[in-house]
Amino acid sequence: MTDLIDMGERAVRAGYTLQKASPDEKNNVLLNAAELLCLRQTDILAANEEDIKRAEANGMHAGMIDRLMLTSARIDAMSEGLRQIAALPDCIGETMESFERPNGLLIEKRRVPIGVIGIIYESRPNVTADAFGLCFKTGNAVILKGGSDAICSNIAIVRVLREAASGITEDAVQLIEDTDRAVTAEFMKLNKYVSVLIPRGGAGLIRSVIENSTIPVIETGTGNCHVYVDRDADLDMAVRIILNAKTQRIGVCNACESLVIHSAVSERLLPRLADALSIHKVELRGDERVKEVLKDECVAAAEEDYGREYLDYILSLKTVDSVEEAIEHINKYNTGHSDCIVTENKETAEKFLNEIDAACVYVNASTRFTDGFEFGFGAEIGISTQKLHARGPMGLKELTSYKYTIRGNGQIRG
Amino acid sequence: MTDLIDMGERAVRAGYTLQKASPDEKNNVLLNAAELLCLRQTDILAANEEDIKRAEANGMHAGMIDRLMLTSARIDAMSEGLRQIAALPDCIGETMESFERPNGLLIEKRRVPIGVIGIIYESRPNVTADAFGLCFKTGNAVILKGGSDAICSNIAIVRVLREAASGITEDAVQLIEDTDRAVTAEFMKLNKYVSVLIPRGGAGLIRSVIENSTIPVIETGTGNCHVYVDRDADLDMAVRIILNAKTQRIGVCNACESLVIHSAVSERLLPRLADALSIHKVELRGDERVKEVLKDECVAAAEEDYGREYLDYILSLKTVDSVEEAIEHINKYNTGHSDCIVTENKETAEKFLNEIDAACVYVNASTRFTDGFEFGFGAEIGISTQKLHARGPMGLKELTSYKYTIRGNGQIRG
Repeated sequence: MTDLIDMGERAVRAGYTLQKASPDEKNNVLLNAAELLCLRQTDILAANEEDIKRAEANGMHAGMIDRLMLTSARIDAMSEGLRQIAALPDCIGETMESFERPNGLLIEKRRVPIGVIGIIYESRPNVTADAFGLCFKTGNAVILKGGSDAICSNIAIVRVLREAASGITEDAVQLIEDTDRAVTAEFMKLNKYVSVLIPRGGAGLIRSVIENSTIPVIETGTGNCHVYVDRDADLDMAVRIILNAKTQRIGVCNACESLVIHSAVSERLLPRLADALSIHKVELRGDERVKEVLKDECVAAAEEDYGREYLDYILSLKTVDSVEEAIEHINKYNTGHSDCIVTENKETAEKFLNEIDAACVYVNASTRFTDGFEFGFGAEIGISTQKLHARGPMGLKELTSYKYTIRGNGQIRG
Repeated sequence: MTDLIDMGERAVRAGYTLQKASPDEKNNVLLNAAELLCLRQTDILAANEEDIKRAEANGMHAGMIDRLMLTSARIDAMSEGLRQIAALPDCIGETMESFERPNGLLIEKRRVPIGVIGIIYESRPNVTADAFGLCFKTGNAVILKGGSDAICSNIAIVRVLREAASGITEDAVQLIEDTDRAVTAEFMKLNKYVSVLIPRGGAGLIRSVIENSTIPVIETGTGNCHVYVDRDADLDMAVRIILNAKTQRIGVCNACESLVIHSAVSERLLPRLADALSIHKVELRGDERVKEVLKDECVAAAEEDYGREYLDYILSLKTVDSVEEAIEHINKYNTGHSDCIVTENKETAEKFLNEIDAACVYVNASTRFTDGFEFGFGAEIGISTQKLHARGPMGLKELTSYKYTIRGNGQIRG
């Protein structure tokens, strides 16, 4: 049985060591890890081969096997990812605010690492190096719990990462090797040692973590994203944006899943849109009014359709008579991820920006831009759909906390 | 049976209404509530009288009854608290950051309300008005679950608050009147509607919320605060600070519970300190080396003493031979609240500030300053001892989230 208490204590100590490391010391470890990953490719690929064989024997479907599989090129990409993280600016130790109180106390709000971060993820071994890189750069120790299908790959990768990290402290990264579910359940109760738990994976994994963890969780990933085409929309632009948001990449959380359309433009827009989407064989599921326009090009949407994240070539469509109705519909069904209005009317745009309850609210741009790299953060650990701590794309700063330092000369409270 | 789903839905709708309210509209409600609390004193005091009678019949001890009891002066103080909150600046809607991407997207990070906040607290009816005021000012709807002993008082107070809030929406504040524990348990699973749950009360309440809530929790309140007297300390200052931090108010989370002392100064400091603390009859619990100096003025500390938040006239004492040893001891036993070093040595001070893992780290000042008002925040909902979202004193800004608004002119992702 894995001794999680021991892992937790090691991680806390590693966190204390890491918080003292200079940017250069940390970057050297990251660059060293990048190099070692390439040097040890043979070992890692051999371990991955074992995982793949087991997965095939268990009848895993092709898409999953593709996610699990490592190649020389994929290991190079993991390595390049670590180099990119090393090249980013270091935000630890920066003064976020400072002020003097009337009694002379000097208060500074200073950015510090969170301490120990837990990551629970599915069978994508590239997450192992990626999560380590982001946590390490921000001075955090990380405890990883990957999917059991990728266990051999993860063990091989973490061995390399620990070797590199030993330049500061090898316990900066630890892997829970035990694939027993009871161990995962116990890990989620390790709030004495782990300050935040980030699940990366499908909706089922995320729900399970939220329901079972006593560690604060950052909820990521589910995106039922909407595009609303307003009465005052540029319809050419609307078609371009919907086509991009729906079909440029379908399996991602920032893809468009639902179109909301103002009744004043639906007759002009829908036939053109259906044409454009038909190239990608997108299935349209519309309400009665959409069906009246599109006839056989559209099937009837059930109420549940509006709440679904398809991650597929399917789009739900809803007709509204006002921006207010659009906002109400979207706030009812969205997952707080990304929603867009297409309109040339500034007032309507502002109303939408103010009233839509989501991490990212767009005017006249594709929801596909909700991404740490597209936002210029240089890195991304996930897209938060909760409101606490971090919302939207999470880069390095979202993996930090702060402390107040207070300098006095003998002040006491009266 | 209370319909919590209905309460959750009402709260979400109220949150959407509140986020649109102007600062003046919100302040008018707060001032109106302040006035109504005074006007309805007779009703509130009568309801409180019922609670007090029941508590006395149940044999509640005097200290608890004092916390539960309302008086005309205490209602005035609640009322004054709401007026003070109304007078504070409104931070909702402010631009926290804005930047333009190379593709022309204009991204703004904007401060917004969290939405719906849940507060679980014990039998202090003044928290009812206070929590409402802070949540309302920041545009949040609040669902309150107070202690069952204060139920009549809370019903009376919330009736007044809802009357005032009806100027915008009365569902801005809702009280769970059902005192059944099963209802509280269900409330803690309401993560579909409630974005954050803040427990206010003793360690048992907080632990229970952390263990049972699926709603993100902000952990507040437990403070095992240390003062470390360094080799290079000004000993007069050390005595003043310890006396203040230990005895100025004993039942609070920022009071000092443990003294860590460098062996080089313990013989000079301890007798003077014991003298000063004897005026308040503070019981000293020391390690062997402390006992050698203080003899009968000190009892032997058990290892558990170093982990205790006494909230009483008791102080644990630990001797160390270096600042490194002090830091290790404090990081092992503190609760991440507030710790202080007394030293004239700048280098030692910096080391302590950097390496102590706590929300507030002090040099030469009493830990009693960890407080939203003392920090100049103008208000306080609690002291966070976790690292996610908010750490240390939580004022109005800590009751907010943010959203990204993105303005484009047709950008799509390539």
